[in-house]
Amino acid sequence: MNLHDEMIAMGDRAVAAARAMAQLSSRRKNAILEAMADELDQRREAIKEANARDMEAAKVAGLSGAMLDRLLLTDGRIDGMIKGIRDVVGLRDPVGQEISKWMRPNGLEIFKVRVPIGVIAIIYESRPNVTADSSVLCIKTGNAVILRGGKEALHSNTAIADALQAGGKEKGLPDNAIQIVGTTDRDAIRELVQMEGRVDLAIPRGGEGLIRAVAENARVPVIKHYKGVCYIHVDKSADHDMAIQIVENAKCQRPGVCNAAEHVLIDEAIAPSLLPDLVKTLRTKNVELRGDEAARSIVGDLKPATEADWDTEYLDLILGVKIVPNLQAAINHINQHGSHHSDAIVASDPAAQRDFTEQVDSATVYVNASTRFTDGAEFGLGAEIGISTDKLHARGPMGLEELTTYKYVIQGTGQVR
Amino acid sequence: MNLHDEMIAMGDRAVAAARAMAQLSSRRKNAILEAMADELDQRREAIKEANARDMEAAKVAGLSGAMLDRLLLTDGRIDGMIKGIRDVVGLRDPVGQEISKWMRPNGLEIFKVRVPIGVIAIIYESRPNVTADSSVLCIKTGNAVILRGGKEALHSNTAIADALQAGGKEKGLPDNAIQIVGTTDRDAIRELVQMEGRVDLAIPRGGEGLIRAVAENARVPVIKHYKGVCYIHVDKSADHDMAIQIVENAKCQRPGVCNAAEHVLIDEAIAPSLLPDLVKTLRTKNVELRGDEAARSIVGDLKPATEADWDTEYLDLILGVKIVPNLQAAINHINQHGSHHSDAIVASDPAAQRDFTEQVDSATVYVNASTRFTDGAEFGLGAEIGISTDKLHARGPMGLEELTTYKYVIQGTGQVR
Repeated sequence: MNLHDEMIAMGDRAVAAARAMAQLSSRRKNAILEAMADELDQRREAIKEANARDMEAAKVAGLSGAMLDRLLLTDGRIDGMIKGIRDVVGLRDPVGQEISKWMRPNGLEIFKVRVPIGVIAIIYESRPNVTADSSVLCIKTGNAVILRGGKEALHSNTAIADALQAGGKEKGLPDNAIQIVGTTDRDAIRELVQMEGRVDLAIPRGGEGLIRAVAENARVPVIKHYKGVCYIHVDKSADHDMAIQIVENAKCQRPGVCNAAEHVLIDEAIAPSLLPDLVKTLRTKNVELRGDEAARSIVGDLKPATEADWDTEYLDLILGVKIVPNLQAAINHINQHGSHHSDAIVASDPAAQRDFTEQVDSATVYVNASTRFTDGAEFGLGAEIGISTDKLHARGPMGLEELTTYKYVIQGTGQVR
Repeated sequence: MNLHDEMIAMGDRAVAAARAMAQLSSRRKNAILEAMADELDQRREAIKEANARDMEAAKVAGLSGAMLDRLLLTDGRIDGMIKGIRDVVGLRDPVGQEISKWMRPNGLEIFKVRVPIGVIAIIYESRPNVTADSSVLCIKTGNAVILRGGKEALHSNTAIADALQAGGKEKGLPDNAIQIVGTTDRDAIRELVQMEGRVDLAIPRGGEGLIRAVAENARVPVIKHYKGVCYIHVDKSADHDMAIQIVENAKCQRPGVCNAAEHVLIDEAIAPSLLPDLVKTLRTKNVELRGDEAARSIVGDLKPATEADWDTEYLDLILGVKIVPNLQAAINHINQHGSHHSDAIVASDPAAQRDFTEQVDSATVYVNASTRFTDGAEFGLGAEIGISTDKLHARGPMGLEELTTYKYVIQGTGQVR
């Protein structure tokens, strides 16, 4: 069979699995998840062996240390997957929820009911734990899943998916509810995201290159975020110490993630008092600061920022600093240069808070808090399949609810038009 | 300027307009809509003159009678557009609604707030009234709109859009909130639906060919429905007269629309008693019936149905009839051959009703009612921009709420991680 036909066949199997998945009760799905966790635990040695094969090949292929670290499965990481599954068991299942209902004057009762999406494709890179983490969220919400991980992790991913499918099967998981794309052919990704009618949603998780490749080839809906160019605006009404703490946290607590701040804007009215203290604090944390001309006129030894800096996600201990004449200039700058992911204002003035939250067109907009809270767990969603900077269906952290859709069920007594 | 640059510039204008639109109060938007209705009324003669130019060219080009009828603007149709606008004024504005809010243990308050989507592109065919109907729904929900109608209607559409923009402007409608693609170059559609970052959503309205062309070229999210292959299943527990009334209504009341029924499935247990009466009733309405072998063994003079029939949207007084051995066979057939638009069961048995509504994977699933109710007005949504057979963001009739998205506003008091 050629690749196209293979993928179509895989899609057909997923559609059949999705129909069966949609009929499972929450109790049944939780029993399946428990059994998956147990089976992962049981197969721990086999999974580590599969991972050792991937690691060996990766070393031969000359993967970087960071890549090798992402690929590695330790007992601790397997424990993490198992704990992740058990945590998801405890979450409320959104499927079956009555979102709303109403009755029409002709007596028709309309129910808007939450249902699974169907078949979800997850396309990711080298971390094998994504295999378990994503599958589990899809299963909890009654979806079938097709997984396409990094080629360097294929043995690890297959071992994990086999354990999940085998463990779940004992408790009634439909065949093919979890499928791994077994070929490392890159064209498989294109095939996968063009299977309209078989794949209902594709979620790419990884670097910008992967996400762009998926988005550019996709015929099926994609939920994604390219990058997080997150801004903090320090308003003239800001509390001095709070501003410094928030910027420091948003930049330094974990600089390599998408909700870390990349740039700070400071109102010119408070820049002369704030900026020197901010620079002092950040330098103790080894942050490289890049300032515009106005910032450098206050603290002379900042590196100069270029225009390109304002659109850049450093993912590193680097911070852009720009002085703005007023709040509106800050809002406009963020809407133009930010990535619509997470942006914050530090301000005491309620009018400034309101204007900022109303006018900044981002998935999450903060007042007096670090951008680092954009995260499913921090939001209390219990789990997260990703963060969306798209505007349709899901925006911001995506939890279980975002892995569902709805349908209308209309109960009549013989009504006709 | 070449087409690509022209479209990008139009997109940039729309983005600026959308930012201004998002800040308008409901009261302000309603004043704008009232002024638009008044201006349409005032410019009635100019609009009819523009339409007369289109009609003349269309006749010269040899358009069919049906096409000419769709293109024609009469006083009655202009009245319809004006009344449509005034009806929308009376609807509740979903923008600003607090969808949910909660507080985290660390004191962060999370608000999920309904906001406009941004820039919406509407791509449609020959009916000029879509220009007003769609624009008005987008404006009510705080979006900017780019309209691309049929080339044969360009003068009419431009006259209508000019009236809307001019009338609205007096009451504060931002410049470029309503833009018409002025070129008839077909490549403009491709450009329009590839403007990621400038166009947030494309909604094609028209025949399957247009919708496929949009979907295949799109980089931006598209909400669409290709066709309505709607099924009615008559369960063995069905009330005999109710089944006949519902099938007759769903097929005959307006056969050319997407929510009309195309096929009926009948449980073999009641087919011998039901089918002859059903055929008798439908033949008085000039319906051509196409039956499978089992149906033809009951009523001998039915035309034979082919396999292709079951996937066909006739949009005409033709009905496919298939006898099924049981409910599960009906459900499987509908999931395989239907278009996931609107499907109904006629049944008295609650278990059959439940299995059908749970397992049929369609946007709207009816019990004991005609499929013809799938419509924004019939649902009580007040207005409809279209019907979606997609699963993400919007499914079924799309009203005002479906023209919005949400953002998270997080209020803190200095929280850091």
